[in-house]
Amino acid sequence: MKIITVKNYDELSKVAAQMLIGEMFQRHERVNLAITAGTTPIGMYEKLVAEVKNKDYFSNVHYYNFDEIPYKSGIREGVTIGDLRELYFDPAGISEDQIHILDGENYEKQDERIEAAGGLDAILLGIGSDGHYCGNLPGTTKFTDFTTKVICDEAMKERIAPHFEDRAETPDFYVTMGPRSVMAARHLILFASGTKKAKIMKAFIEGAITDEIPASILKMHPHLTIILDEEAASLLDKEK
Amino acid sequence: MKIITVKNYDELSKVAAQMLIGEMFQRHERVNLAITAGTTPIGMYEKLVAEVKNKDYFSNVHYYNFDEIPYKSGIREGVTIGDLRELYFDPAGISEDQIHILDGENYEKQDERIEAAGGLDAILLGIGSDGHYCGNLPGTTKFTDFTTKVICDEAMKERIAPHFEDRAETPDFYVTMGPRSVMAARHLILFASGTKKAKIMKAFIEGAITDEIPASILKMHPHLTIILDEEAASLLDKEK
Amino acid sequence: MKIITVKNYDELSKVAAQMLIGEMFQRHERVNLAITAGTTPIGMYEKLVAEVKNKDYFSNVHYYNFDEIPYKSGIREGVTIGDLRELYFDPAGISEDQIHILDGENYEKQDERIEAAGGLDAILLGIGSDGHYCGNLPGTTKFTDFTTKVICDEAMKERIAPHFEDRAETPDFYVTMGPRSVMAARHLILFASGTKKAKIMKAFIEGAITDEIPASILKMHPHLTIILDEEAASLLDKEK
Amino acid sequence: MKIITVKNYDELSKVAAQMLIGEMFQRHERVNLAITAGTTPIGMYEKLVAEVKNKDYFSNVHYYNFDEIPYKSGIREGVTIGDLRELYFDPAGISEDQIHILDGENYEKQDERIEAAGGLDAILLGIGSDGHYCGNLPGTTKFTDFTTKVICDEAMKERIAPHFEDRAETPDFYVTMGPRSVMAARHLILFASGTKKAKIMKAFIEGAITDEIPASILKMHPHLTIILDEEAASLLDKEK
Repeated sequence: MKIITVKNYDELSKVAAQMLIGEMFQRHERVNLAITAGTTPIGMYEKLVAEVKNKDYFSNVHYYNFDEIPYKSGIREGVTIGDLRELYFDPAGISEDQIHILDGENYEKQDERIEAAGGLDAILLGIGSDGHYCGNLPGTTKFTDFTTKVICDEAMKERIAPHFEDRAETPDFYVTMGPRSVMAARHLILFASGTKKAKIMKAFIEGAITDEIPASILKMHPHLTIILDEEAASLLDKEK
Repeated sequence: MKIITVKNYDELSKVAAQMLIGEMFQRHERVNLAITAGTTPIGMYEKLVAEVKNKDYFSNVHYYNFDEIPYKSGIREGVTIGDLRELYFDPAGISEDQIHILDGENYEKQDERIEAAGGLDAILLGIGSDGHYCGNLPGTTKFTDFTTKVICDEAMKERIAPHFEDRAETPDFYVTMGPRSVMAARHLILFASGTKKAKIMKAFIEGAITDEIPASILKMHPHLTIILDEEAASLLDKEK
Repeated sequence: MKIITVKNYDELSKVAAQMLIGEMFQRHERVNLAITAGTTPIGMYEKLVAEVKNKDYFSNVHYYNFDEIPYKSGIREGVTIGDLRELYFDPAGISEDQIHILDGENYEKQDERIEAAGGLDAILLGIGSDGHYCGNLPGTTKFTDFTTKVICDEAMKERIAPHFEDRAETPDFYVTMGPRSVMAARHLILFASGTKKAKIMKAFIEGAITDEIPASILKMHPHLTIILDEEAASLLDKEK
Repeated sequence: MKIITVKNYDELSKVAAQMLIGEMFQRHERVNLAITAGTTPIGMYEKLVAEVKNKDYFSNVHYYNFDEIPYKSGIREGVTIGDLRELYFDPAGISEDQIHILDGENYEKQDERIEAAGGLDAILLGIGSDGHYCGNLPGTTKFTDFTTKVICDEAMKERIAPHFEDRAETPDFYVTMGPRSVMAARHLILFASGTKKAKIMKAFIEGAITDEIPASILKMHPHLTIILDEEAASLLDKEK
């Protein structure tokens, strides 16, 4: 585990982008990345788009989404892939054959097809203030789970409903790579920004491995890099 | 996680030896291995000695012990390193500068010096029928621990006393690489033989991550290979 | 470059087998090996068959031949793949989907398909007393060549004719991975046995990079391991 | 070999900086880089300084110079390390213990100490219009050379004299990592900018392996990345 503390959100975005570009350049053969949607990566994708757009030397890079909330009616692609297209794939002009969609239909094959493609070189993860990552929320998956379907109870439906303009589209389930799918990647990159993440980062970095903080298990990975801005790092013990 | 099931103890010993030799050959620069003492590896070391003895092309291989039970008086080296010398280092003629001893004095530097040496390429682990590995016994270490000192209560002293001819040498503590030290290795190899290990292997492979089975955390490693003979594998669910 | 000198042909065969098995175990995902036919590997394949046969834990290993002399009429598979089947694939029970045949039809795609499969982890090479390896004989390929077709002049036809019971089957060309295809592998393993190889090994190891000794270029690879028995090493300068 | 063609010098500098930063981030343990002085990297170092200065998360990165022209009197450090300090080490605030100086005294140990440190992860190379790289000029080193001392004839002295304000300081020799030292790195990065490099890049990329173009041997490396701006790439055959 290596903790990189930077000044602010802009630096965080820059360092995360540098790290992903480093992964892209690490070899000439196929490189597999699983990347996150959400708000934390917005600044990073802006920087990444500028570096990746129209660069055919990155055609060896393949992308995976690691969770998905489908539309109930199936009228369109799910929430996560939609966000990734808007944030990154579309503005960066990523070719469709470099995008490997996880959805409600194919999730049972996710781990298998990633392994067949050589495994994930890196996975970029955000973290929620409740300690969730991907769709691994407290009370949903077990540490031993691979990619799985999570049935939504009413509380969960309430939680994900804001993703849908038409709330009738809120689905009864979502899918997510599980803890073991994530831990199988060769490099975990987790980033967090802002005071709203300070408390969970302290619990995550200094606390125990516990189901109550799903991300806590990630500390056991042999190659985990954490990027924090000063605010997110503000509650950490000073002596390393 | 990859499970390799072999017929019997002899095959188990052979495959474990092949795997370690493979690690030794994987590059010309320094290779770092942490290896286990105990009864499971006896057959493997016999085979390994035959392949390693007087082979100067393995002079790039460095060895670490991952736990140690010291003699209370300090009159001689600890139990683990003593066993490793008898089982392997002495008969194989391993040079002293390839042996990196963990003991009660230097344990706080173990993780640091391993990282400075480039990290462990592989660690070979046995497993106890109580789910322990290295000195990580139920109730001793937490998943978040690095190399640490374990203070022995009376029950633990009873347990380790048989290692000492003169029971007055039973120490008040032992040292062990902790779960995070072990998980930091690039390749975990865990092997188990015999019906006496069948129950724990079922719990380990099919059960939850739990402090009650310290080894259970190892399932989360991105590169864990498990070698079992048919007896140790006899209780596993047949469908993969 | 690392030179491993062993006592005799039997040890050479054993060490080469250990090295290949090490490659097979190095990761759980697909492993790609290009292996040699000929006389040098006969002893190695005997040992390898015993370790690989009926071992489904090696189902992640894929095999490539690196050159081929086709039958002129095309009535059967080429000489190299025929030899590999006889020496190794058949007795070891290697599944057909793990065998990736190079032949006179598909050679132009060889480099591309290997790269798409993740590249070669290792290539095992013999060396001729004229310094050739694969089908890179003096006067046939240039150092800059990738996989290519070599048109046979009369002298070359004479040379390869003994491979064919019916000499009318001697082809007008053969195909081979070129120097750059070979150098693209992550690990080159070259072995040689017997006094008949002593002179070329001295020229190869101590001499210049020259077209006259096609194998000489292999010394420039960042990860070349050479295995020699005492006879093949007998002319080398003693002071390393 | 992968060729990355970018628009202009500024993009070339940016991509080279991204690639080096990628190497720095590739693992938490020690990373070893050999880097070039000269004019091509000036723009890159400007960018790199901004990203590396005061970033203690790059304290795992170690730097090597790959050639050196010493001052005859020895009154100060050599030309190359002096340039690297001015261009990069000083403005980036690189700590002295991360800088590993090659000079006229220690060159015979260069290959050994690099191997003992784990080998070079990457080496960044410029190329001269005569095809030289590092101190490997036509007529000086052989492909088989490791780090070596090159005795300067009068023509060479003329050539290197402009490096010295006081021409009496022009030395009788210089030292350089040889072709085999360079080829031992895990990743070769070669960059070239401007029309003055177009002719040599065509000869290098499309031509033969020849002593007359020392850099030509680098094409044989399994992991060579070439970065060119449009001018340097202007004479290349269009069809890949």
